[in-house]
Amino acid sequence: MAQQITLYTSKVSTFAHRVEIALALCKVPYTRCEIDLWNKPEWYIPKVNPLGKVPVIAYGGPAVPPDEPSPLSTKLNESLVLVEFLADLYPASGLLPADPVLRAKARLFIDAVSTTFLGPASAGIRGVLHGGGDATPLVRALEALQALLPPTGFAIGEFSAADVALAPSLARVEMTLENNLGEYPAEAREGERILRLIRGPGLERWAQYTRDVLTHPAVASTFDKEYNLERANKRIAKLRAEK
Amino acid sequence: MAQQITLYTSKVSTFAHRVEIALALCKVPYTRCEIDLWNKPEWYIPKVNPLGKVPVIAYGGPAVPPDEPSPLSTKLNESLVLVEFLADLYPASGLLPADPVLRAKARLFIDAVSTTFLGPASAGIRGVLHGGGDATPLVRALEALQALLPPTGFAIGEFSAADVALAPSLARVEMTLENNLGEYPAEAREGERILRLIRGPGLERWAQYTRDVLTHPAVASTFDKEYNLERANKRIAKLRAEK
Repeated sequence: MAQQITLYTSKVSTFAHRVEIALALCKVPYTRCEIDLWNKPEWYIPKVNPLGKVPVIAYGGPAVPPDEPSPLSTKLNESLVLVEFLADLYPASGLLPADPVLRAKARLFIDAVSTTFLGPASAGIRGVLHGGGDATPLVRALEALQALLPPTGFAIGEFSAADVALAPSLARVEMTLENNLGEYPAEAREGERILRLIRGPGLERWAQYTRDVLTHPAVASTFDKEYNLERANKRIAKLRAEK
Repeated sequence: MAQQITLYTSKVSTFAHRVEIALALCKVPYTRCEIDLWNKPEWYIPKVNPLGKVPVIAYGGPAVPPDEPSPLSTKLNESLVLVEFLADLYPASGLLPADPVLRAKARLFIDAVSTTFLGPASAGIRGVLHGGGDATPLVRALEALQALLPPTGFAIGEFSAADVALAPSLARVEMTLENNLGEYPAEAREGERILRLIRGPGLERWAQYTRDVLTHPAVASTFDKEYNLERANKRIAKLRAEK
């Protein structure tokens, strides 16, 4: 029997976005509590997450307002642990299929995605996204991920946790490039140039996959692009002014 | 219906050791193929793992000798993906319990273990293990892991994937310290001094947990301590001779 779910999240968090997509896919009612990461409510660290980060799911316990969390609910963190948790709670969601081999392939894709976009090895890619210039590190990384994809469809065929893990990074990479949100001068339009490269020859399958992921209802309905764009624009304007 | 399992592994690999423990826990027959990581057979990279690493499970396909791998078997890598794969194939093994909350807690413990012993943040700990000196980074890390343990038993109560993920590191840390396998002079006996510290006041629960994990049959039966000790002794003797 499923119990109440409260999600502590933030529209700007790539990690929290994963859990919002997973919850949308499970079609499960939940209480959403936006946390301002730069001005956290005083109850958040003592009562929800000693690390002060999002996402957190408070699971079970009595019905309470999210800003008065109960010590009786179980607090779980780490985005990928939460995606697996939802896959376990809602096997019919398709977050993870039943077949052990396909489940392993989804997890291998997640591992590749985490290494590419989020680990220490992602420095080269982040350099291209934020600085422009030679796009080779980004192109090579996307070629490697493209090689993991089947000829059509999502990472393991049907939309799954594999795509959920990647989608938030993908949405933010596209936004960054489309809007030239780099530390280069605005008029250099480096982002648009790089975007043409990664939609161009050699990366056609990746470009199609990107479109499929970003237009999936569970992804599109959980990304507040306007809000993220406004924040990113402000941050970049400040960085450019300081140069 | 379970299919044939061939494990490509190495006695010296912490990661491969995880999968050997998991297989022992599943009590499943499998073909074990030791790979000499410093002198790999020519067929390994083209036919089993382009990355050249262990562990790999070749699952299904026709019955073939392990040194003639079939393209028809599925090759899966990444130790934690393989542990989850075995938990999916053999739910009765207890590798992961049925309760979604307990499964999430096992994965959170694995996450903490991976960060502590294997990620970029482990540099401080490795410095202590290999160099001796101020043991504070190791003691603090073990205190943090100790705080995640229940009052008795294993990481989530029963022995599970959480303990499987940690056991290989634990076995090698104990071996390193017991035998003073550091870059300090042998007569300094730094390892033994540090071992007394981490078995001492403040870390009693951790010390008990370590004993419970290392004497678990699935762990004890899969760690060839003599072989690992011999290799480690040779490596350290060479390092000390070069100083």
